[in-house]
Amino acid sequence: MDLLKEKILKEGIAVNENILKVDSFLNHQVDTKLMIEIGKNFAAYFQSKNIDKVVTIEASGIAPAFTTANFLNVPLVIFKKQHSSILNHDLFETTVHSFTKNSDYKLTASKKFLKENENILMIDDFLANGEAVLGTSRILNAAKCNLQGVGIVIEKSFQPGRNKLENAGLDVYSLARIAKLGNGIIEFI
Amino acid sequence: MDLLKEKILKEGIAVNENILKVDSFLNHQVDTKLMIEIGKNFAAYFQSKNIDKVVTIEASGIAPAFTTANFLNVPLVIFKKQHSSILNHDLFETTVHSFTKNSDYKLTASKKFLKENENILMIDDFLANGEAVLGTSRILNAAKCNLQGVGIVIEKSFQPGRNKLENAGLDVYSLARIAKLGNGIIEFI
Repeated sequence: MDLLKEKILKEGIAVNENILKVDSFLNHQVDTKLMIEIGKNFAAYFQSKNIDKVVTIEASGIAPAFTTANFLNVPLVIFKKQHSSILNHDLFETTVHSFTKNSDYKLTASKKFLKENENILMIDDFLANGEAVLGTSRILNAAKCNLQGVGIVIEKSFQPGRNKLENAGLDVYSLARIAKLGNGIIEFI
Repeated sequence: MDLLKEKILKEGIAVNENILKVDSFLNHQVDTKLMIEIGKNFAAYFQSKNIDKVVTIEASGIAPAFTTANFLNVPLVIFKKQHSSILNHDLFETTVHSFTKNSDYKLTASKKFLKENENILMIDDFLANGEAVLGTSRILNAAKCNLQGVGIVIEKSFQPGRNKLENAGLDVYSLARIAKLGNGIIEFI
């Protein structure tokens, strides 16, 4: 997606060879018009999959997931991050390891909003190690939903996430794929 | 806002005299079309205030704040909740007490995205005790921004939030004002 790549090159900051800051338009300040174009793009790509719901994980994925759900005319379901176990029988729960923060969190979703056989599209802002998507996939398996695709705004293709998701049989579509980061260097695939 | 009130009466669950669950369309599952109507309504009400940015606090306020910012053609800035102090000179930080969770959190925002004299509109999903809005106001004061208004999706008018904010001189506009909650009872003002 050229508009996104231009924005990344113009405003993204490669802090080091692993970290790309895009907090001026995606993570902290949000460019709503760009998010609408992103949602339009995801919706067009996954149009044929008969998506029933879009899911994302709070908080940075909400804006692109919202616009995607809106174009697909389906509800958005926001999975929650908890810092301690909830032990609530109304919730699905799984533990996810964050390599970025080097800590675990509990990912939860209400059983009310995930019905058997629903076709689900997951949208997230970044793909790096893939653990958040795999956690989401575990919850969707427990709910007997079908994870029909994964839409990623920015993929760090030099990290193992895409391979892990493809090995799990998932259809991963990323709008910008970063081949290399370095001090002041941002290279796309 | 009639559409919102109808939705609250149809899908909201008054758990007790303090708690209203609206997780089928606002907090967990999100009705994107309703959020667009909410954003349209907020944008129309605050149109004359020359808003430069919309701010909200992660995560439940993001959807209505996103649509409001989009109609006003301004960026959205998402304030972050941290569980420990960050001590980062690039951030504004204040401590907010959550009566709902009976705990404190650190509210932070990057100094990069709040410029002196900017006119700010805050959007949030709920107003109860007003502490989140007051924390946001402290950060905006530190940034020398002007908090031109506060847009609330659902106000629990039987709690002290509105009074505290009005006493602080803030313009508070709520789309649904709940006078009374009880077991199965939801009454608007």
